[in-house]
Amino acid sequence: MPRAGARSARPGPVGRGSPVRRTSRDIRTANRYQVLRQIIAASPTSRQELAAATGLSLATVATLVGELLDLGMITEVGFEDSAGGRPRGLVAVNAPGGALIGVDLAETYVRVELFDLALNVLARAEEDVRPGESRPEQVVGHVATAVGSVVARAGVEGARVLGAGVSMPGQVDRDTGVCAYAPNWDWHDVPLLDLLAGHIAHPLYLDNPLRACAVAELWFGAARGHGDAVVVNLGTGVGAGLVLGGAVHRGVSDSAGEWGHTTLVLDGRPCHCGDRGCVEAYTGAPGIMLNLRELSPDSPLLRADDQTATIDALARGVRAGDPVAVKVLERTARCLGAGVAGLVNLFNPEVVVLSSWVAAAFGEPLLDGVRAAVARHALRRPLAATRIVLSPIPTDPVCLGAATFALEGALQSAGKGAERRAVGNRR
Amino acid sequence: MPRAGARSARPGPVGRGSPVRRTSRDIRTANRYQVLRQIIAASPTSRQELAAATGLSLATVATLVGELLDLGMITEVGFEDSAGGRPRGLVAVNAPGGALIGVDLAETYVRVELFDLALNVLARAEEDVRPGESRPEQVVGHVATAVGSVVARAGVEGARVLGAGVSMPGQVDRDTGVCAYAPNWDWHDVPLLDLLAGHIAHPLYLDNPLRACAVAELWFGAARGHGDAVVVNLGTGVGAGLVLGGAVHRGVSDSAGEWGHTTLVLDGRPCHCGDRGCVEAYTGAPGIMLNLRELSPDSPLLRADDQTATIDALARGVRAGDPVAVKVLERTARCLGAGVAGLVNLFNPEVVVLSSWVAAAFGEPLLDGVRAAVARHALRRPLAATRIVLSPIPTDPVCLGAATFALEGALQSAGKGAERRAVGNRR
Ligand SMILES: [Zn+2]
Ligand SMILES: [Zn+2]
Repeated sequence: MPRAGARSARPGPVGRGSPVRRTSRDIRTANRYQVLRQIIAASPTSRQELAAATGLSLATVATLVGELLDLGMITEVGFEDSAGGRPRGLVAVNAPGGALIGVDLAETYVRVELFDLALNVLARAEEDVRPGESRPEQVVGHVATAVGSVVARAGVEGARVLGAGVSMPGQVDRDTGVCAYAPNWDWHDVPLLDLLAGHIAHPLYLDNPLRACAVAELWFGAARGHGDAVVVNLGTGVGAGLVLGGAVHRGVSDSAGEWGHTTLVLDGRPCHCGDRGCVEAYTGAPGIMLNLRELSPDSPLLRADDQTATIDALARGVRAGDPVAVKVLERTARCLGAGVAGLVNLFNPEVVVLSSWVAAAFGEPLLDGVRAAVARHALRRPLAATRIVLSPIPTDPVCLGAATFALEGALQSAGKGAERRAVGNRR
Repeated sequence: MPRAGARSARPGPVGRGSPVRRTSRDIRTANRYQVLRQIIAASPTSRQELAAATGLSLATVATLVGELLDLGMITEVGFEDSAGGRPRGLVAVNAPGGALIGVDLAETYVRVELFDLALNVLARAEEDVRPGESRPEQVVGHVATAVGSVVARAGVEGARVLGAGVSMPGQVDRDTGVCAYAPNWDWHDVPLLDLLAGHIAHPLYLDNPLRACAVAELWFGAARGHGDAVVVNLGTGVGAGLVLGGAVHRGVSDSAGEWGHTTLVLDGRPCHCGDRGCVEAYTGAPGIMLNLRELSPDSPLLRADDQTATIDALARGVRAGDPVAVKVLERTARCLGAGVAGLVNLFNPEVVVLSSWVAAAFGEPLLDGVRAAVARHALRRPLAATRIVLSPIPTDPVCLGAATFALEGALQSAGKGAERRAVGNRR
């Protein structure tokens, strides 16, 4: 059973919890991530190109490429002529060499996507989670149904599924798989991983949407190739996934990234966290609705309590030049920009990515407003070093990121297997 | 000449700028740091105790201890009985095995301390930098005089000095040694390291006070043994040195940690950075003086424009129960606590250290106020994982941290030498 191994595996590269955990195996795992990431980005490619792109030595790249070939994750695809020299062997990602499942377990729905190794979506399923259906067994039942459905629809054998990553909005202990607290469903200390494992036979990896979006940007989006990046999630909640030194930063109790509850306006608006004046209270979807309500209490753009409909109406209004919608966007971008400037000053990152559905809905006008506000608020030197961009990921970044946790987990376990084999051979 | 090697050396462990720079040499350097740190903390000690304390294997510890013995940084000091087993060899730091110089180049003074390898202060010198004496050549002259003075007073041979770390408040490029900008002296693109190297023959390491305080806490203070820590500097300026994954985080253009200019009160007080409502405008020494002036414009605690005297008067007032002083402290702690709660939520660190002269002046009453405010503002899970403490470092943390940069640099160069020797032996 792969589950037992997977549940205690920490897919994150180069353990960041404590300096004592950093080992040469972590380095090898991180290098393996980097090489596969580059092959997925630029197939077909040569070992020489990979060495140039990653900064690793040609010998190291050759070893890692050999491992990935053995795992069936990549494949040899012929040769290219090199001017005057020997023809160079080319490798490419072996898309059908395995399947990955990404589960976006959200407040009101479960979305599941099944990917091939090139991270193309092969099948998709969605289940509603209705109010009153939020007991752990019920939610897990929805996940199991949707996972079974995508595996059947994609027509892949179960054995080809390398793992399933599950993102859920709550406090999750990645080591024990216990959800300590999920405010929306009032879960306390739910052994979620054990419950899921009762229905799903694939290796399972549990994490939260903040980090799913960050790892998706790190592998496939705007943070690829960058050591230090901040992925700002704008949805109902607001957070910042931190990529530091090329890996997702988790914090000592797996709860880093709760940027939405940074004080922006001391003694300002009440926030649902119990505090006042938090960034989220001005820039999360409910905060943006309140920005609208304060400006124009009877605005036809307001869709009662429907966040998605109101944000969509506002975004359309901005594009049509509706002055109220434009004002709401300005106010929102100004608050967000003041907050993001703080992240730029603090981390001095290479890139700040605006991600999640609210950022996608507003698009360029929000980006322009945020860039202008950050330029007013940030210090010159870190500002000059930072690009601020919209997430370029075209699909659900949470599903993609969850599937990436499964991919990282498979690469990490593969390393352990290779070491065991190496030890065995020496005997 | 050691200088040329040292100036391009990056003393920071495990390169954090980009994932491509992470190598097994970085790991070895980080492990060497960790073992020496532990020996300094707990001399005499055995290889077995070191392995237990660091989490490294006994074989790795034995190799690293051998290297440190070869370098003369530690020494064998006999044996201890282990119950029933073979007596264990003990090692201790070899305090006279080398000397380290730490330079705190501040707005109005140059303070230089010379340390032995146990980081005891052997000699100290201070020079005033008067207004109108702030041309680079003049400032460098003061540094050279003070460095010469401590070496002479301590009676160490120049050859025993392993290096000098220089902390200066400005934007410093550690690779080129150029100070891009120092606002207090209006320096622009000053080749500081070259100027210093014209007078000082020891390997030189340049950085800023924020990171000097962070590395001092990491080696000798409250961050020792912790992977993730935030060192909040409270002085004239306010910043946050970030220890992430056991190393100081520098950011992509060496300017991470500028936490003082995070917006705390949108559209609040003007800040000298040109923005409004920054954390520093409420919690730096001038901000605290303004807190006092707003509450009691004619307070006898106000000492005109003398920050140090006013902060000292306020601190005495708090201890004596003066109601105005107590109110000012409450207001300051409240602002600082709201800001620190944001750092706790964002990083989920093991420890937050309050450092620098304003924190030292107020001491426990400030700590109590900050802890109470953080408890009101932070989320429960990261709050539960974080301790908030005053810096336990009894001397100038900036000098100590600057000397530590020199120690890290010496350990890193030693590693390169060892590798060169190993390669040479193979031939
Ligand atoms: Zn909040
Ligand atoms: Zn400011």
